Parts: sequence; C-alpha cells; structure tokens
Amino acid sequence: MERIKTGIEGLDIILNGGIPKNTVTLISGPPGSGKTILCYNFLYEGVKEGHKCLFLTLDKKVEGLLIQAKELGLDFQPAIEKGQIKFLFLNINKKLIYETMTNEILSGEYDRIVLDSITPLSEMPIYIRNSEIKNKDINIINPEEFTPDENFPVRRLHLHYIMNALETANCTSLVTSELPVGSNALSRDGISEFLADGVIVLSLDPTMDRRKITVHKMRSTKHTLKPQDIEITKGGIRFR
Amino acid sequence: MERIKTGIEGLDIILNGGIPKNTVTLISGPPGSGKTILCYNFLYEGVKEGHKCLFLTLDKKVEGLLIQAKELGLDFQPAIEKGQIKFLFLNINKKLIYETMTNEILSGEYDRIVLDSITPLSEMPIYIRNSEIKNKDINIINPEEFTPDENFPVRRLHLHYIMNALETANCTSLVTSELPVGSNALSRDGISEFLADGVIVLSLDPTMDRRKITVHKMRSTKHTLKPQDIEITKGGIRFR
Amino acid sequence: MERIKTGIEGLDIILNGGIPKNTVTLISGPPGSGKTILCYNFLYEGVKEGHKCLFLTLDKKVEGLLIQAKELGLDFQPAIEKGQIKFLFLNINKKLIYETMTNEILSGEYDRIVLDSITPLSEMPIYIRNSEIKNKDINIINPEEFTPDENFPVRRLHLHYIMNALETANCTSLVTSELPVGSNALSRDGISEFLADGVIVLSLDPTMDRRKITVHKMRSTKHTLKPQDIEITKGGIRFR
Amino acid sequence: MERIKTGIEGLDIILNGGIPKNTVTLISGPPGSGKTILCYNFLYEGVKEGHKCLFLTLDKKVEGLLIQAKELGLDFQPAIEKGQIKFLFLNINKKLIYETMTNEILSGEYDRIVLDSITPLSEMPIYIRNSEIKNKDINIINPEEFTPDENFPVRRLHLHYIMNALETANCTSLVTSELPVGSNALSRDGISEFLADGVIVLSLDPTMDRRKITVHKMRSTKHTLKPQDIEITKGGIRFR
Amino acid sequence: MERIKTGIEGLDIILNGGIPKNTVTLISGPPGSGKTILCYNFLYEGVKEGHKCLFLTLDKKVEGLLIQAKELGLDFQPAIEKGQIKFLFLNINKKLIYETMTNEILSGEYDRIVLDSITPLSEMPIYIRNSEIKNKDINIINPEEFTPDENFPVRRLHLHYIMNALETANCTSLVTSELPVGSNALSRDGISEFLADGVIVLSLDPTMDRRKITVHKMRSTKHTLKPQDIEITKGGIRFR
Amino acid sequence: MERIKTGIEGLDIILNGGIPKNTVTLISGPPGSGKTILCYNFLYEGVKEGHKCLFLTLDKKVEGLLIQAKELGLDFQPAIEKGQIKFLFLNINKKLIYETMTNEILSGEYDRIVLDSITPLSEMPIYIRNSEIKNKDINIINPEEFTPDENFPVRRLHLHYIMNALETANCTSLVTSELPVGSNALSRDGISEFLADGVIVLSLDPTMDRRKITVHKMRSTKHTLKPQDIEITKGGIRFR
Repeated sequence: MERIKTGIEGLDIILNGGIPKNTVTLISGPPGSGKTILCYNFLYEGVKEGHKCLFLTLDKKVEGLLIQAKELGLDFQPAIEKGQIKFLFLNINKKLIYETMTNEILSGEYDRIVLDSITPLSEMPIYIRNSEIKNKDINIINPEEFTPDENFPVRRLHLHYIMNALETANCTSLVTSELPVGSNALSRDGISEFLADGVIVLSLDPTMDRRKITVHKMRSTKHTLKPQDIEITKGGIRFR
Repeated sequence: MERIKTGIEGLDIILNGGIPKNTVTLISGPPGSGKTILCYNFLYEGVKEGHKCLFLTLDKKVEGLLIQAKELGLDFQPAIEKGQIKFLFLNINKKLIYETMTNEILSGEYDRIVLDSITPLSEMPIYIRNSEIKNKDINIINPEEFTPDENFPVRRLHLHYIMNALETANCTSLVTSELPVGSNALSRDGISEFLADGVIVLSLDPTMDRRKITVHKMRSTKHTLKPQDIEITKGGIRFR
Repeated sequence: MERIKTGIEGLDIILNGGIPKNTVTLISGPPGSGKTILCYNFLYEGVKEGHKCLFLTLDKKVEGLLIQAKELGLDFQPAIEKGQIKFLFLNINKKLIYETMTNEILSGEYDRIVLDSITPLSEMPIYIRNSEIKNKDINIINPEEFTPDENFPVRRLHLHYIMNALETANCTSLVTSELPVGSNALSRDGISEFLADGVIVLSLDPTMDRRKITVHKMRSTKHTLKPQDIEITKGGIRFR
Repeated sequence: MERIKTGIEGLDIILNGGIPKNTVTLISGPPGSGKTILCYNFLYEGVKEGHKCLFLTLDKKVEGLLIQAKELGLDFQPAIEKGQIKFLFLNINKKLIYETMTNEILSGEYDRIVLDSITPLSEMPIYIRNSEIKNKDINIINPEEFTPDENFPVRRLHLHYIMNALETANCTSLVTSELPVGSNALSRDGISEFLADGVIVLSLDPTMDRRKITVHKMRSTKHTLKPQDIEITKGGIRFR
Repeated sequence: MERIKTGIEGLDIILNGGIPKNTVTLISGPPGSGKTILCYNFLYEGVKEGHKCLFLTLDKKVEGLLIQAKELGLDFQPAIEKGQIKFLFLNINKKLIYETMTNEILSGEYDRIVLDSITPLSEMPIYIRNSEIKNKDINIINPEEFTPDENFPVRRLHLHYIMNALETANCTSLVTSELPVGSNALSRDGISEFLADGVIVLSLDPTMDRRKITVHKMRSTKHTLKPQDIEITKGGIRFR
Repeated sequence: MERIKTGIEGLDIILNGGIPKNTVTLISGPPGSGKTILCYNFLYEGVKEGHKCLFLTLDKKVEGLLIQAKELGLDFQPAIEKGQIKFLFLNINKKLIYETMTNEILSGEYDRIVLDSITPLSEMPIYIRNSEIKNKDINIINPEEFTPDENFPVRRLHLHYIMNALETANCTSLVTSELPVGSNALSRDGISEFLADGVIVLSLDPTMDRRKITVHKMRSTKHTLKPQDIEITKGGIRFR
C-alpha cells in the first residue's frame, strides 16, 4: 500500500506514513480551524516531491490565498511559474462550474488535488448538463440517462458526482467541508463522510485556546481515534 | 431454528450461534465504525462454508473494496473466480437501479446477501416502474396497481420494497445504514429498524479510543442489550 | 366494569384485572422492546378464553410471525385451523388497504383485535374513497361529504378513522406504535395517545440490560405510573 | 369580581374563590393527566349550582364519556334528561363543524362551556365559510371580507375565531389542549396560552408516580405559580 | 437626552430616569409574565403627565382590558372620556388592519403608544396595499414600488413597516412580543429585538414562584444586565 | 503586512496591530452586545487617520445613529460636513438596494466600510438584476449569465455577491451579523463566517452582568481564541 505524505509530520506518523494513494479524504472543521492551511501543507509537500498539483477554490480570490500561504512560509509562486501547481477559481455563479471542474480534474493528470470547499457545491441545485466532458468512458453520471424531477434531493447526487470524478482521476485528494461552530457532525452535508475514504476533523476550543485534529476514518489504516493537539505557526500546522 | 455464523466469533456467541436463517439484519453505525468490514466477515464466512454470496454496493468502486478486504486478510479473489461470490455495483444515477437489484436478488439463488448501504436508496424519490422483474408470483409491490401522488413519502415504500425482496429471496441478509456521528438512532431513515428482523449497532468513542457493538434486536433470540468492546484488526472485527 | 385479561399476569394485577372491555389501548415502544410479543400474549389469552381474535399486520410475513410466536411457546396453529383466530396481512402498497381493514374489523364479530402497527398507516396520505364498506350506519367518516384539499394534514384524519372503526366494532383492541430509540413520546405520530383509551409503553435500557413496561393512561382504572421491570422469556412477557 | 367555582376545592382556594366569570381558561396536559376529568368536575359543579352547561367533544363517543364520569361518581344522566347539560360530539370530518360549534355556543345561553379539545380544530386548514351563523352582530370573523391565500397560517385565525365565539357567549369556559409528553409548552399550538384569560397545566411524573396542577396565568387573580400535588380519585381531581 | 418615565419606579432607576424619548422598546415574555400590565403602567404614567396615549390591542376585547387595569388600581375611564387616551382594537381578520393601524399612529399626534402584541401581525402574510395612508412624505414602505414574490419572507418586512411607522410618529412606544415558555429568545419572531431601540424581558419561575425583569438593551443608556425581582400587585408591577 | 487600527486599543493589541488591510471581518453578536458601537469605533479611528469612510445601515434612521455615537463621545458631524464620512441608509423595501449598495462601494474610493447589518440582506430572495453597476471589469456576478430557478437557495449567492463587492473595493470592511440570544453560531446565516477573512464575536452574560469579545478567526494573524472582558463606556468599547 503506497502512502502519500501530508506535509504534516505528526499526521503522517498517526497515519502510518500518510494517506493511502488514490483516495479521497474529507477535511472538516469550523471557520478558523485551519482547513485551508492543512491543504497548503498537503500541496506544498506535493510540490517538494515533484507532484503535479491542483487547488480548486470557491470562496476567495487566488491572490489572497497565495499571500496567506506565503506568510506561513509556503511560497507557491515558483511552482506556479514552472507549471507544477495550478490554482483554479471556480465561480459559483457560472452555469458551467461542474463541467469546468470535472474537465480540469480528469484531463490535468494531477497527482494531488484539493477542493476547498465542497459545501457551496453540495448546496447548489443546478443540474448537470450534457456538455464538454472530454473523457466519457469513465463511470460518472451520464446526463442523457438521467432526468431529475422537481423535488429531487440533488445534494447526494452532486456529492457522488464530485467524489466519482476525484476517484476516477487517479490522484490523491483532499476535500474540505465547512462545519458550523459547536457541531459534532463530520461534514456539513451529512453525506460526504460516508463517500470519502478518510475523514479528518479540525476543531478549536476558544475557552481553552486549543486546537485539535482527529482522524475519524482512514481506509486501510489502523489509527488512533483520539484528538491530537496542534498549533498553526510558521510552516502551517504542527503537532504539539 | 437454524443459525448462520457471522464470521465474528464473539458475535456468534452473543447470538446463541449466529443470526437466524432467512432473516434480514440491519447493521448501523457512523462513518469509520466498521459496518463494511462486518459485512466482509459475514461473506468471508459464507465463502468458507460453501454458501453462494452477493455483495451489493452503492458508494465505492468494487476494486477498492476487494483491496481493502484483502489487506484485512479476507481475500475474495479466488471465490469470485469460482463464481461463488459476486460484487455488484449499483449505480445510483441509473433509472433501473431497483430492477437491477431486485432481479439479482431474486434470480441468483444466493445464501447470503449484503446491501451496503440502504441509505442512498431510501433517500431517492424515483418511482418503481413496471419492468423486467422476472419472478412475478411473489408478494412485492405490483407497480400497475400503485400510482403514488406527488407528495407521497416514498421512503417507507422504498424500504418495504427492498426488505420484501430480501425476505422473499430465501437468504440471510445484512443491510447497512449510515448514522450521523453522535446519533442515538438505530437507522438513518428511522424506519428500517422496525422492518428488519435484527438490529446491530456499531459505535466509536474518539475520546476513549474505543469501538463497540450492540445487539438491539434479534428475532427468536434471547440476547444481552449491553454494548461489547471490539477492535478492527487482521481478520476484521474481533471481540476484545 | 368488565375487564379483559392481557395474558400477562403482572400487567393484569396493575390494571385491577385487565383492560376495560371495548376500549382501544396503544402499545408503544422502540424496536426490540416486545410490542409484538405483548400482542401475542393478548391474543393467546383470548384464544384460551374462547374469544374470536384478529391480528392485523403490516410489516412482516404471517408465517414468520407464527414461527416466532411458537418459539415463545404460543402456538396459534390449532386456533387458526378452528377459525378462532385470523392473521391478516395488510399490504401497504394496495389502494384498498383501508377498506380491507375496515370491512374485516366491522364484519368479523371479533372479541379481540390487534393492529401491528398503526405507524405506516398514519404516514400514508392516500385518501379514503367511497367504496365497499358494508356497514354504513356507523359513525365513521362519510367519504362523500369530505373533500380534503391538497395541503391537508391527513394524519389525524387517518388515526380518527382507524380508532373509530375499532371503537365501533364492539371489541377490545391493542394498537402498536413504533417509537424512535430514545424518544420520550407516547406514540410516533403524537396524536394516537390522545385518541386511545389506554397507553402502555415498553422500553429498554441497553447499558443496564433491562426492559420495562409503564402504564401511562387507562380509562376507568386507578393505576401506578411507575415503570415495572419485565423480561421476555418462554411464554412471552413476564414481570420480574 | 364574580368568581365561578371549579368543583375542585383546592383549586378554588388557590384562585381566591374560582375562575373569574365570563373568561376562557386553557387546561393543558399530556395524555392521562386528567384534563377531561377536570372538565367533568367543572360541569358537575355547574349542574349543582343550576347552571346551563355544554360539553363539546371531538375525540370520543359521548356514551364512553358519560360512563367514565359516572365511574368517578359524577353522574350527568339526570341533568341531561332535565335539559340542564348537553354533550355535543363535533365530527372533525364534517365541513360544517365550525358553524355547528359556533351556533351552539352563541344560541344556547350557556353559563359554562367546555371544549375538549381545541387541538384537532387548530390543526385543520378548512376555511370558515359564510353560512348559518345566526347571531351576526357580534365581533367575530366576517367571512365575506376575508379571502385567505394558499399559504396562510390559519392556525392563529382558527384559534381567534373559537376564542372570540366563547368570549362573546357570556359564559365561563374551559378549553383543553393536548401536550406532548415532556413538553414544557403551555399549549400544543403555542398560541392559545396568549389568547386565553387563564392557563392551568396538568402534569404527571411517572418515575415518582405523582400528579400536579399549576396555575400559570389567571386574569384579575393574584395566585401562586407553584405546582400543587393532586390525585385522581372518587369524585375526580382532589388536592393532596 | 430626554427620558420618559415608565410608571415603574424601580425600572426608571435602572434606566437612569426612564426610556429615551422617541424610541421603540420591545417588551417580551411568556404568558402571565405581566407584559400587558407593564403597558398599563406605562400609559397610566403618561395620563398622569398629560401625555396623549394610544393602546393598540389584537387579542382581547377592550372592555376586559379596562376592567383588568381598574382592578390593578389603574382606572383609564376618566382619561378615555377626556379623550386623553384611546384603546383601539385591531381586528386580525380585517384586510385593512395595517392601514388602520398606521393611520392612527401617524395622524393621532400621540406621545405614548403601546402595541400589544406584535406577534400576530408578524405572522400574517397579508401584503400591504396602496391605500389611505394619509401622511405620504415619510420614509416607510412605498407600496407601488414593491411587488413581493410568492415565497417572500414577509415577516421581516412587516416588522420593518410597523417599527418604521412608530419611529416616524415622534412618540415613545412599547411593543410586546409573545415568548414561548422556557424560551431564551428576546422575541417570538427573532427579528424585533434587532429593530427596537430597547429590549426588556419579563420572566417567571414557577418552581420558585418568582417573577423577574431584565433590561437586555437600551439605546444611549448604561444599564445593568442582571435580572431584577418584581411582583405584580395593586398598582401593577413593582420592584421587590 | 499592513494593519488597520480598529479604534479599540485592546483589540489592536490582540490582533498584532489591527485588522489586515483590504480584508472583510465579520462582527457577530446578539442584540445589545455592542456590534454597532464597535463599528463606530472603527470608523471614528478612520476619520482620525484621514481615511475616507462609509457606513451602510439597514435598520435605523441615520439621525438616531449620529446621536447615539455622539453620546458615546464619537461625534461624526464635522467629518460628515467635510465629506470624509458618509452614512447611507439602504432601504430594504426598494428593488434597487443591491445596485445602490454596490455602486456606492465600488465608486466611492473608500478606505473603510461598515455594513450594519448583513442579516436582512441575506434573507431577501430578490434577484440581482442587470443594471447600473458602473465598474464592470470586476469579478462579481454577471447577471446576464445567471438565471436562478425558483427553488434556488439565494442566501449563499447574496452573501458571495456582497462579500465580493467589498473585497473588490480595495478597502477594509466590517460586516455585522445578528445572532439570536444563546446561539453559539458565528453568524446568523451560517455561511458568512466562512466567506469573511476574520470573525469577531461579541457576547453578553446577563446573570454575571459581563460583556466579552472573542476573535475566532483572523487571516494572517496569530491570535488568542480566549474571550476577553470588555465594557461599553464613554468612548465606546474598552477592554477591562
């Protein structure tokens, strides 16, 4: 079983060397818990190992992300210029967002992909249209066959669609989910945690001023279920 | 009363020898609690006993399942080649998913069947059409007689339909249900636990790093209601 | 005030001799709590006393019920053959389920009737049609007069309809309701407990491995409100 | 301020002599808490004082009520024969239920009226039509002026309508509301407690085998807010 | 900053002399907590100071209110006869309720206005029509410009409309809101507390037989957040 | 990294000098917690530093705000007259509210902007029309491309739209969100906290008569998560 380093040493130790290759791991947490920073660590490690990387983002302008990462000591500019990593803004207000995303995932030959975050996508009831999906002989939704009726709970379908695309792409991916503060859920949608191969939750305790990381599930990996203390510092997330 | 071994020794002891033959048992639990692994144990035991087995799956690619099982020491490849076990992917995005599933269950002459999981099926409001169901003289839904109106709560109907098919098939089955973390419910849909003959819940306690199994209900069986400590290890689930 | 023995000695003592004749009692509880077994006890007692009995069931095949009862030492086969008891499967997927049920209740001249369970019926928004109800001069819904509009909360109407049919039939009845685990409610629908003359709740506590029965309400009966310890054993439910 | 005796001595003491004349008091409680029995006490006291009384009921057959009351030592038969009290069954399945009720309330010249219970009425979205309401120069809904649109929350309107009719009738009334077990609400609908002049809650504690009554609100009356212990016994409700 | 006395001495002390002039204060509380009585105190003080006063009521007949107030020693009859105070019943079943209310508020030149209560108004989805609003050059909703679509959450609009009318009228107002028992919210609608300049909550604790008042917010006023003990007695609300 | 002083000394210390320039910070809290006052401090500091400032308000008349601020010792009148700060009332009942707001934000060349509050905007399902948005070459919603269907959850779209406008404007902004009392959420809508670069929560504890401020998230800033005691006094918010 080949394992992919996360770029966070303590996490790799807990996971017996890293995340299993070609799996999808959900990273959940409330605002400010460090979900995006964990993704920076993951992709920065990828860049160091010569992997081809993709960062799909929905909530921020790309420049702001690059500045934030650089301030943490994770400068992606050289890798961008070499074409080793791509930051792609997915505009939630565009009709073709699903096609744009799927085409990039399937045609880019990436080793590592981050989708930050899956929450707005799972909440959008825009139906998938039959369009320019280039690679057709993969096992994802065939739009011609499927006509959702009006009251259809599309959330699960959207999530299946996205997870399938990532699984099909022969890469190792992280997908973030936005948890409300105080929630004990493993994802905002309540479904992703069953579709993903792994689930990692970030949490913070304001009264104790403490941050924690918990591995709730990881395929083919015997791991502790106990929360671990972390801090966010120069270099990103670090185990205490 | 004939009993079917679960492949987990401790569980068979609690159940006075195993699950009653020709019943449907619900296996519920949150993500990472070991629902799928319990199903591997159940079918691997079946293979050892010369039973004909079927694994119906909705959330993963079959290859990933086989790899995960093999890593636990449960290699299904030889049995697949001998035609003793079949892993069938049910595509939630296909219109004929119910017919595909029902036909396989009713015509395959299986001894043991696993459906992993029933949750996405129970949440899909796609109506059952009159189609290629081969065995008609059984007591399941007759589509010609039934025209659901628009606001019909189809969930219960779907579950009746699936449970009826499994009961009719003269086999012993396990059906998994996805519980949200922290839920005390016995199924995600709130109905399956009343339709099934048995209910087994898997749980995990992150702060204590402990896993448990509880038998909530088992027809024709006097059993303890107390949670039992388990671990997931080489060979699958084992009582501690 | 004539009282009807329940077939459970401890329960009859609490109820000053049994359930008042010609009343409807609700039996609520989570899965595995023994609702159906309590109904077996009630009808087996009826058979012993020479009463004419009816068991209306929605969730299981009749054969399975007879086997389960026989394993508990309650063999209904001889009484079935003598025509003293009838087990009737109500198919939730048939349009005429209400008419079938009502006609049987009203025309069968039963002394004891069990409806196991009322929950699926209360959740079905299929409107009652004007049809072959034989006994018309009773005080139940007159379908010609009533045209429910689209958003009508039919649940309460269904329950009134069923309860009225049972009250009209001059028999003593038990009606079961499926409670979610951990619920403190007295019925799943939140209405039946107000319509029934009596309410008995079965509960189980997994951590303590204990089963209890509580009489919440019983018309014309001064009774304790305290939960009583029971066990399920040879012969059905027994007070400890 | 004239006060009307409730027929329960302890309650009259708490209320400084009884309920203020010409007011509407809400009686709320879970099933089995004694709501209907409190109403028997209220009307039996009325009969003793020579008042003209009306009992409006929705959930039971009248004969059952009379038997239950008689078993408690409250025999209404003589008063019925003298025409001093009327038990009127309101059929929830009849279109003209509101008109029937309103006409009886307004034209009957009653001193005491009981409505048991208001809950099914508040949950029925059947609109009030312009019909045989005899007394038109009172301040209740004028149906010609009001065309409710489709999504209108009719519950509050229904309750206003019923409360207005009772207030207009120059009588002292009790209205019961069905509380779910364990609820801390003062009514099932969440509105009646603001419309009524008084609110009395009945509760029961199964683990302690105790019944209580609490006066939450009573116009023009300085009263304790503390729950009082009661029992249901020969003669109905009695303070302990 | 000019302050308006509330008529409750203890409350005026907490508020540094009273409520700021020309503001809107929300009075929230469960049934029986004394909301209406606090309003009586407020208007009775206004009458004593020679203010012109308006009491807008939705739930009761005016005569009942006057009797209740008089029993508390607050006799409004003389002031009504002098035309110094007006009690206006707003009929929730009339289409023109908003226009009636707004016209009275804007044209009456009142110093103090009470609206008891805002809850039924906020729950009515009847749209504001272009009609006889006399004073048009004020900054409230211009009905011609606004066509609400079908799913519009009108609650917030209604509340803005009412609050704007009160703010425009150059008076000091109290608006009551009906809280469910046990609620910690500051209003029933969850919005009024943000629109009002002040928020005062009345509460009662049945087990301790105690009543309290808490000032949660008051513009331009430094005040304690602690609940204060009160009692309802001759003269209305009094600090203990 | 340039930082913008908040006008509250203690807060600037916690934030290592202030809020990062050109970011959007969410200020959440229940009514009376001091959200608006924190905004006054922020803009008053801006005025002192010669910044061009904008205060967008939805809930109050501008004059009332200026009086309230002046009473706290924060007199904006001179700056208004010099054209250094603008208070703009956004009328929630006008169709063009989004265009008005966006045009002002994008064309005004402001250094500091306050939006008080975002809650009513996020709850209004009025679609954005193609209109007089002056600056078109920015990355916000292009209305021509987007036709929301009827059931579209517009809340997230609205919030994206507003946040994007603020991010595009090259200014540092505060956006307030109205929290229900007792809520542990970071915003009323449950989405803003993920879109904003920073999240600051104000809270109050009535029983302890204490006010607190907590920084839950701040981009590019290592900060404590612990709540800090504050008071509202002359000069606005001050750390204790």
